[in-house]
Amino acid sequence: MPPSVGDLATPALIVDLDRVEANLRRVQAYADAQGVDLRPHVKTHKTPRFARAQLDGGAVGLCVAKLGEAEAFADAGFDDLVMPHTVATADKAARAVALAQRVRFAIGVDHPAQVAVLAAAAEGAARRLDVRLEVDTGAGRGGAPAEAVADLARRVRDAAGLRLAGVYTYEGYTYEARDRDELVARHDAAQVALLEVAATARPFADGAFAVSVGSTPSALAEVPLRPGITETRPGTYVFDDLTQARWAGGLEHAAAHVLATVVSVLPGRAVLDAGSKTLTSDRRPVQDGHGWLVDHRLPVVRLSEEHGVVEGPGVERLRVGERVRVLMNHVCPVANLFAELHLVREDVVVGVVPVAARGRLT
Amino acid sequence: MPPSVGDLATPALIVDLDRVEANLRRVQAYADAQGVDLRPHVKTHKTPRFARAQLDGGAVGLCVAKLGEAEAFADAGFDDLVMPHTVATADKAARAVALAQRVRFAIGVDHPAQVAVLAAAAEGAARRLDVRLEVDTGAGRGGAPAEAVADLARRVRDAAGLRLAGVYTYEGYTYEARDRDELVARHDAAQVALLEVAATARPFADGAFAVSVGSTPSALAEVPLRPGITETRPGTYVFDDLTQARWAGGLEHAAAHVLATVVSVLPGRAVLDAGSKTLTSDRRPVQDGHGWLVDHRLPVVRLSEEHGVVEGPGVERLRVGERVRVLMNHVCPVANLFAELHLVREDVVVGVVPVAARGRLT
Repeated sequence: MPPSVGDLATPALIVDLDRVEANLRRVQAYADAQGVDLRPHVKTHKTPRFARAQLDGGAVGLCVAKLGEAEAFADAGFDDLVMPHTVATADKAARAVALAQRVRFAIGVDHPAQVAVLAAAAEGAARRLDVRLEVDTGAGRGGAPAEAVADLARRVRDAAGLRLAGVYTYEGYTYEARDRDELVARHDAAQVALLEVAATARPFADGAFAVSVGSTPSALAEVPLRPGITETRPGTYVFDDLTQARWAGGLEHAAAHVLATVVSVLPGRAVLDAGSKTLTSDRRPVQDGHGWLVDHRLPVVRLSEEHGVVEGPGVERLRVGERVRVLMNHVCPVANLFAELHLVREDVVVGVVPVAARGRLT
Repeated sequence: MPPSVGDLATPALIVDLDRVEANLRRVQAYADAQGVDLRPHVKTHKTPRFARAQLDGGAVGLCVAKLGEAEAFADAGFDDLVMPHTVATADKAARAVALAQRVRFAIGVDHPAQVAVLAAAAEGAARRLDVRLEVDTGAGRGGAPAEAVADLARRVRDAAGLRLAGVYTYEGYTYEARDRDELVARHDAAQVALLEVAATARPFADGAFAVSVGSTPSALAEVPLRPGITETRPGTYVFDDLTQARWAGGLEHAAAHVLATVVSVLPGRAVLDAGSKTLTSDRRPVQDGHGWLVDHRLPVVRLSEEHGVVEGPGVERLRVGERVRVLMNHVCPVANLFAELHLVREDVVVGVVPVAARGRLT
């Protein structure tokens, strides 16, 4: 008899496959309707099982956050990887060039010094390293200013071992949007800015050239994409979480939860065996709390490393020893803390998969 | 030639052994001066190398946060473990009883239902399971109210497989103290409350009976302990961090830092290859920011999963490719993200140790 989730040691990270499959279909349909490539970010699941499902559903390739993730997915047989992040030292540039000899691999740049270190590493390599230019369209994280793009593109073109393969931007500010209208307006402004930059950079490219945007909020909100945008890069949509719920249309799309145990019930509060080393200290942009007991409609109000404290109306009705489903503020760093994911369909455990790229930090 | 820290792939977690040894001596001296046992919490380092150093320096045994940590340290040869946390299900009670057959092991309780599940698991075991009662002295996390203690103690005494072995409290509120006077006053009130509870519970005990307090702030601030307190349980002091710096007396006691690389320098900011999956989203109780570039005196002002954004006066002087030392808000969850610690003396790497109990979640 297959085990029930009630038999698992807690905390466990539970993934509902029916919901995952619905989430994958939904975002693939959005990309198809917009006529762009879907290149999902694996940072959320770090697990070949789900990357394969994304490709089988129509995704063109994968995004990775780090060289260590890229190497783990290349080892697992994935052959089209883009890293929308950059490196700045010779050791990492050598690893990027080595990846480009094994699989189709592109890396980001937003500063001439990165181009120089990558060019030096790629000199004489059998296959050129694809490079994409990151442009800042308001997120204030990575990304060159628009006026620096022509110079960067020229430097890439002039490096024998590099190939200019596209431009991209990161839309972190969409997480702050108050409603869909604001999300669409901010995203559209970013697209306009990116398309201008693409026009500047493209003359320095040869071969395929990606113009890439995308995040889970914009995909779930079905933000219209302008002609000329070729790719979207959402990640969190595979599982969703409390932060994404407002764009997903509710908690019933959340495909992952932490199964925790109520280890104590004390005056005015209950205590879970899941703290910041399980749920992380990531906060939601618009609401307080560290997690949500979805079946009891109660919040985790305080965390320490191995304790989650639940308070609210009716909390004394929780029973010591009871298992509860906890939705997370942000699923990506939580999955990074677990060695394995428990896969379920209708509360029956149908598989366990290792989080292959967990803690690949470098 | 031994490698220099400049050769390491980043991000890396660097531990300065000279500073660790000074930190261990300092807190052992405090415990000795107060005439109490030092039982350090391994949650901070999760690494047998440092647990051994703590015992060699005079600690009587170890604290662990979870059964998985206890099992990892028992496997590594440590034979005196206390878990100041509790369990509430039969599977975990069985693991606790199994540990008590291998090593000296005590577990916490603060509710009759936990006593019942542990008593059932321990029935007929060759060696009794030691149980300590947790009492809430104001932290609002775990811990029974004082009026529940006599009943709990009686239940433990009446269970054939259990032995009442002590009382303890957790002092999370000390982190909020504005100054040493407030810290001492709050700690003293907790000691008074715990000693009253100890007097209630002790008649139900046979054999050794611990009366246990302790946290890194109280140890670093050298809070006086009252007669009758037998044990202190600090953890973070092995490494220290930005939160502990005000009690430690400055940043020069911080024995661990994240070595990160400046991957870009952009208008008004620099970008590190260390984000929330490296530094965590833990905040400091009294100050903002996500980390501190100690050599440049600049803060990490924003994090996403794999990016740390640095802003502040002179940030444009950072160089792309430069390695920087980043002090952490809270070192314990950061060490839990790394597969290994790099040990240094005067910037020479003298060893690499695995974080043996990393991610032991259950």
